[in-house]
Amino acid sequence: MTFELISKDPGSKARFGRISTPHGDIDTPVFMPVGTQATVKTLTPEDLVAAGTKIMLGNTYHLFLRPGHELIHRMGGLHGFMNWPHPILTDSGGYQVFSLSDLKTIKEEGVTFQSHIDGARHLFTPESVMEVETALGADIIMPLDECTPYPCAYEYAEKSQAMTLRWAMRSKQRFSELEGRGRHPQALFGIVQGSTYEDLRVENAQALVDMAFDGYAIGGLSIGEPKSTMGGLIDLTLACLPEDQPRYLMGAGTPEDLIDAVGRGLDMFDCVIPSREGRNGALYTQNGRININNARFKEDPAPLDETCSCYACRTFSKAYLRHLYHTGEMLGPRMGTLHNIYFFVGLAGQMRKAISEGRFVKWSEQFLMRYRTEKNRKECDQ
Amino acid sequence: MTFELISKDPGSKARFGRISTPHGDIDTPVFMPVGTQATVKTLTPEDLVAAGTKIMLGNTYHLFLRPGHELIHRMGGLHGFMNWPHPILTDSGGYQVFSLSDLKTIKEEGVTFQSHIDGARHLFTPESVMEVETALGADIIMPLDECTPYPCAYEYAEKSQAMTLRWAMRSKQRFSELEGRGRHPQALFGIVQGSTYEDLRVENAQALVDMAFDGYAIGGLSIGEPKSTMGGLIDLTLACLPEDQPRYLMGAGTPEDLIDAVGRGLDMFDCVIPSREGRNGALYTQNGRININNARFKEDPAPLDETCSCYACRTFSKAYLRHLYHTGEMLGPRMGTLHNIYFFVGLAGQMRKAISEGRFVKWSEQFLMRYRTEKNRKECDQ
Repeated sequence: MTFELISKDPGSKARFGRISTPHGDIDTPVFMPVGTQATVKTLTPEDLVAAGTKIMLGNTYHLFLRPGHELIHRMGGLHGFMNWPHPILTDSGGYQVFSLSDLKTIKEEGVTFQSHIDGARHLFTPESVMEVETALGADIIMPLDECTPYPCAYEYAEKSQAMTLRWAMRSKQRFSELEGRGRHPQALFGIVQGSTYEDLRVENAQALVDMAFDGYAIGGLSIGEPKSTMGGLIDLTLACLPEDQPRYLMGAGTPEDLIDAVGRGLDMFDCVIPSREGRNGALYTQNGRININNARFKEDPAPLDETCSCYACRTFSKAYLRHLYHTGEMLGPRMGTLHNIYFFVGLAGQMRKAISEGRFVKWSEQFLMRYRTEKNRKECDQ
Repeated sequence: MTFELISKDPGSKARFGRISTPHGDIDTPVFMPVGTQATVKTLTPEDLVAAGTKIMLGNTYHLFLRPGHELIHRMGGLHGFMNWPHPILTDSGGYQVFSLSDLKTIKEEGVTFQSHIDGARHLFTPESVMEVETALGADIIMPLDECTPYPCAYEYAEKSQAMTLRWAMRSKQRFSELEGRGRHPQALFGIVQGSTYEDLRVENAQALVDMAFDGYAIGGLSIGEPKSTMGGLIDLTLACLPEDQPRYLMGAGTPEDLIDAVGRGLDMFDCVIPSREGRNGALYTQNGRININNARFKEDPAPLDETCSCYACRTFSKAYLRHLYHTGEMLGPRMGTLHNIYFFVGLAGQMRKAISEGRFVKWSEQFLMRYRTEKNRKECDQ
């Protein structure tokens, strides 16, 4: 994997770059749809390509449990199994172990957990996760980390980030040993942790940079802390990271979060928001998020977003889409997901264009002015 | 609507024909996917076209309840509302009133029923159903009938078919009065009832033919009676119907049922089997129906059906499809439905080709020999 920094925005820290992987190039900033169980829920690879997707994310925790990384490896790796010949990133499973599974026990060796599906006991170690991710065969893989909750006591956060650093070193060691065993070269990123504590974030980031990863992610943010806290921690962390490598904000976020983070110098994003909210009928438009279930759309003959050229907007009225959700028809969630993915992937595209033209700040002001108007209706939170 | 009988099979009563409607031509025999609530579950109009669909069916009962025929009419009729510019047939709602709704009361005037959704009371009369179907605007519409259950006492069946005949006359009257009120011309079919009683079927069919409908449907079959009974009643009924008009067997059936019925001279079919079973993982192949949930497909790298060129078969392995169903991913039911619709629509296409080449009997023997092999595994019924 290589990263080329193509241009920088004159009015912000936004960057336009290009990641090259064995499965293709990815222009950054980029939004990566989440394909939890080897599928971005409701969508086909063809749909993802039509939405402009250049890279998708798979969840190691879920794939390890079902259908199992060894089966996926035998079926041609994750690329072959789901027939997605484009770049893939897999997370480490750490976040899901801590948020989904029961009875987890964290020790220096690794984390023992019970499957949220059948209660079976499993152990993830930094080494075993590298083996799982080698079998899955994503282009970019992440090491096992502990994602501390928010809020988190300083003492716990300090110990946790120190252990996550030792895990990172062990991951890197095992990753080197496994090199050449996969179907194609993989890149390994480091994940900066440290909760909301500035000194821990700095210490953690510097130590990771010393280990020389292929790229760096910021983990443990966008989990409930105030936006202002997140912004400050991002700035602080990015100041510790090399300019010539990709930077990935894990699990973020809303369109406003993405625009803010890109302005601070981040390159990669993943989030379940567009797919999860799409299934529920919270749909993103240039004029803000709307709740398609709302009665005001009952006879609305207009498309979701006049400026959008996704299949749902080219084909259906809001009245029809509302009918689909209202009657529990699967085509509703499918169209909502397609549209939202198109919106998020396209938003990153708009940002790349604005950066390459040196007008990211102006663009973001214009975008947000239009976007925030209807958002105030808050009908999605009803 | 016009019907042209293009050719007849020399070895059977199978016919190859063409129905022309304001929204396009339909070669027969034809399979019509069921779009109950203005959507063939999980699929887009684009998917249906890709599967070769030339005409789809909408359910008047469901559309009347949600979103309502008047709303649909204001949104451009069913064609405009769901953006399906090709032919549509709507049923009368009778079957759903009798099978889905609560507390129905049948009188000469019509049928009073309670919505299965919210318990609201409604009255369907032969006249009101014509009004609803005019508002929906399908190319072919059906009159209100009583679909008697199986088995049914002779006395009840006799009274019922006599009332259904009077309803047919009232429907035709109201249909004439409404002519020109819709967006485009519509055709009205008659529905032959009479339970499993030969004399009632003949009496009913002859009386309907005297009323001169645009085509004729056989209702009240494929609801649990023995196959041999169904075959005999079809033959008897078709002998009463004019050769130069289309004949539609409502609600049938399996691939074997369709082949049998085409050999007896039927032209049109609709059934929820491909979509309902597709959602559950019962998938149709040239070698019989398989249950994709079965463990034997866990690592099967082959497509569902090597001879099928639907998107699911061109893109995914059985192992991947099984994983989707196993993990409850919506893409599974979506791909299963797409494949099954492709199979049923394609089956009608194979039959048209065989008839036009005068080798329907030979073709059906070959098809069934291959199709029945794996069917005996019965794994779908597990």
